[in-house]
Amino acid sequence: MASIFSKIISGEIPCYKIAESDKFFAFLDISPIAKGHVLVVPKCEIDYVFDLDEDLLSEMLPFAKKVAKAIQKVVPCNRIGIAVIGLEVPHAHMHLIPLQDNGTIDFTVKKLSFDADVMVNLSKEISKLI
Amino acid sequence: MASIFSKIISGEIPCYKIAESDKFFAFLDISPIAKGHVLVVPKCEIDYVFDLDEDLLSEMLPFAKKVAKAIQKVVPCNRIGIAVIGLEVPHAHMHLIPLQDNGTIDFTVKKLSFDADVMVNLSKEISKLI
Repeated sequence: MASIFSKIISGEIPCYKIAESDKFFAFLDISPIAKGHVLVVPKCEIDYVFDLDEDLLSEMLPFAKKVAKAIQKVVPCNRIGIAVIGLEVPHAHMHLIPLQDNGTIDFTVKKLSFDADVMVNLSKEISKLI
Repeated sequence: MASIFSKIISGEIPCYKIAESDKFFAFLDISPIAKGHVLVVPKCEIDYVFDLDEDLLSEMLPFAKKVAKAIQKVVPCNRIGIAVIGLEVPHAHMHLIPLQDNGTIDFTVKKLSFDADVMVNLSKEISKLI
C-alpha cells in the first residue's frame, strides 16, 4: 500500500506544497514544531534514508538547501536545522526546521497548529521564492 | 581562529576518529546522547550547513551513509538518525545518532560519558568497517 507521503506526492491526499523536482517533494508539516517546518521526501518510497542510492542521496541536501534558503526569507529564524528520525511513516523524510537562538530541535514539544489560511499563505510565500 | 573541529581535523586536538575523505571527517561525539553518536564535519570551515556549496553538499550524505552503515553493524540500534542543529560551534556538523525503537532524537537528555578505552574500541570497531 502506498505510504501517506506517496499519496501526498500523487495528489491523492492534499498538502501545502512547497517545491518538487524529478526526485524530491517538499511540503509543510501539518504537525509542525515550528512555523515553516517542512518535510522533504524522495518520490520513491524507500523507508530508511540511508537505503537511498548514492544518486538520490547526493541530490537530497542540494534540493533541501533551495527549500531552506526560501524558508529563511519568509520565517524569522536564526537558520534552518535538519532532522531525519521518524520510524512512524515507512518513507524516508527529512525535517527542515527553523531554529531560534537556542539552536536546537526538540520533538518533545507540543505540536503547533495553524489555520488553513495561514498554511496556504506560508506555502505560497515560501514556494514562490524557490 | 580555527574552530575546535578544524583543530580536531588537523590533529591539534585528539579525537576518536571514525573516517575521513578528501572533503569530510567523522569522529565520535565526546558528549554523546547515544552510544555510537558520531559527528560528520566538512574539512572546510563553514559555519552553516546550507552555506556549503553544491559539490560539498552533494557528497555529505553519501559519506554519512558509509559511516552510518558501519555504526549500525557495531551498535545495537534500529537505524541511524540525522540532525544538524548546533549554533555552539561555528563549523557545520551533522550528528549521526543510533536510534532505538522510539525513533527520536532528544538533545535535552543528559549526555552520556564513556571511559576512554570504550571510546577507543568503539571507534576502532566502526572505522574498520568503512
